[in-house]
Amino acid sequence: MGNLRVAVAGVTGAVGQEILQVLESRQFPVGELVPLASPRSRGKKLRFRGEDVEVRVLDSDSLQGVDLALFSAGSSTSKKFAPVAVARGAVVVDNSSAFRYESEVPLVVPEVNPGAVQKHQGIIANPNCTTIVMVVAIAPIHQLSSIRRIVASTYQAASGAGAKGMDALVRELEGAGAPSSCAPDSPFPHRLAGNLVPRIDDVQENGYTKEEMKMVWETQKIMGLKEDIPISATCVRVPVERAHSESVQVTTEDALSLDDIRAAINAAPGVTVLDDPRQDHYPTPLDISGKDSVVVGRIRRHPIEPNTYDLWIVGDQIRKGAALNAVQIAEQVFC
Amino acid sequence: MGNLRVAVAGVTGAVGQEILQVLESRQFPVGELVPLASPRSRGKKLRFRGEDVEVRVLDSDSLQGVDLALFSAGSSTSKKFAPVAVARGAVVVDNSSAFRYESEVPLVVPEVNPGAVQKHQGIIANPNCTTIVMVVAIAPIHQLSSIRRIVASTYQAASGAGAKGMDALVRELEGAGAPSSCAPDSPFPHRLAGNLVPRIDDVQENGYTKEEMKMVWETQKIMGLKEDIPISATCVRVPVERAHSESVQVTTEDALSLDDIRAAINAAPGVTVLDDPRQDHYPTPLDISGKDSVVVGRIRRHPIEPNTYDLWIVGDQIRKGAALNAVQIAEQVFC
Repeated sequence: MGNLRVAVAGVTGAVGQEILQVLESRQFPVGELVPLASPRSRGKKLRFRGEDVEVRVLDSDSLQGVDLALFSAGSSTSKKFAPVAVARGAVVVDNSSAFRYESEVPLVVPEVNPGAVQKHQGIIANPNCTTIVMVVAIAPIHQLSSIRRIVASTYQAASGAGAKGMDALVRELEGAGAPSSCAPDSPFPHRLAGNLVPRIDDVQENGYTKEEMKMVWETQKIMGLKEDIPISATCVRVPVERAHSESVQVTTEDALSLDDIRAAINAAPGVTVLDDPRQDHYPTPLDISGKDSVVVGRIRRHPIEPNTYDLWIVGDQIRKGAALNAVQIAEQVFC
Repeated sequence: MGNLRVAVAGVTGAVGQEILQVLESRQFPVGELVPLASPRSRGKKLRFRGEDVEVRVLDSDSLQGVDLALFSAGSSTSKKFAPVAVARGAVVVDNSSAFRYESEVPLVVPEVNPGAVQKHQGIIANPNCTTIVMVVAIAPIHQLSSIRRIVASTYQAASGAGAKGMDALVRELEGAGAPSSCAPDSPFPHRLAGNLVPRIDDVQENGYTKEEMKMVWETQKIMGLKEDIPISATCVRVPVERAHSESVQVTTEDALSLDDIRAAINAAPGVTVLDDPRQDHYPTPLDISGKDSVVVGRIRRHPIEPNTYDLWIVGDQIRKGAALNAVQIAEQVFC
């Protein structure tokens, strides 16, 4: 311990930066940090544990002798370099969607399916941020009684598109561009300030976006749900900086009391209840930004349909939705 | 026609102002306008058809000789003065929730249940804005095959809280208040800029808000759905100025093709389809603001559950959600 060589690929991005903070604050046993990025960041200085570290270019040589490689540099970079890292002896925790749906690659949320890590063959996939936030919140309900249906609508922050997304929102709010246009270089297809964008990632053959189908495929895989359990999502970008919110309806096999649901969520790791709406106590994305825990409020029993519950779930997209979950996976392997 | 005496109660509010514009642009046969508000607006000048009109105080005398009274001054004002207006011979179209759930009061969206108007006994209720936007969009689907379930999550604009709501959002965006606090005099329980507020209107005994239960009760009444058809809503305020958006999942009795759904919506009055997500063609609240029509995009067939469809619905909250619908009801009575 304390002597691991840890590479962070995509270290200059929003998630890469957060990974450095999480490694530091959780005292992950980093012996040597290998900060990697694309050539345009070569030589850039970053702070880690109070010292300057210099960014190196991600290539085959830079992965030599690495024990753990945390990848957060996009799908094509992961496809190219994660197998190289594994071939050189590293365990890879990959934040992209490159390997998530391969049957031999574990897709892990440590609070939900910690056992899956053990079957890894070098690569462990970190799920999509939206999926992580949802499954941490609903897994305790699934433990009480099997989930039979999930209907999700999301309210996703600009940070889901990285530093570039947060920057575009801030510039639009500051007045960049015409009042109804995108900020220059925005990663979003429409203006986000004062607006909503109901299309995240590519549109699939069935009309759902890849982001929406990730919530279906990944929830099935992480929670071990059969493929005939209905899951659906509508994913929407909202003008919020960095926490994702989700309106989720779950139907269970048996009737549950709201007290039992609240107690189960509060007893589970990584998630807490904040649910006193008459006092305006419920999670909002502004309050949850920067927090490790996913928070659930507005827990209600459907007014008409049996065994059906509505939830309002909020989690920090960069932290639990990406960096923290990746480091927690690494802790399972190495700590 | 052209000789109706038309009172607008709450004329200085966001909806009252929009009612004046709609009366004018639709050439509603106003012989004399009677602009009414609370004592603090007495003597205020407003423009109507290019002329200044002076605001009078809403009281029993001011309702004398009125043919049509459009009320948009809150529930307690409607409860007090709508019966007075009716006693003095007026037909009242009431935008508050005061009378919506009384069995003898028609609750009308002219595109959906125009026949209901005829049974009025003086008062006709205008539904909640969120309900209007949804039912205009899903009624054409219900015509194709009976709806068996509705799951809605809303993305509601600041305008739902009136001029005060829009003003609070604008001031927060301009930097009023601390970065994580409400603007002074905000009608919202949490800061709205850069945030989401998942509580609109009072919390009911069952944990749902009144806004959420309005969508259940009013959709049942307007569409004539049996009380055992599951309907549920999660209503969320978003930092958008004036159009409401809704993620709605409907399940129908029979399987429908997406082409049939699109054709039915396009053929129906008051609603159109904008649905080519690969070209980023779908409604956004910024684009729909100020428009009469409700617009539906992202029409999808559920990836797993039979006869189930996901929709993204956007409508201008002040216009179709309130002022336009009220004037359309009046047109049914008088034109």
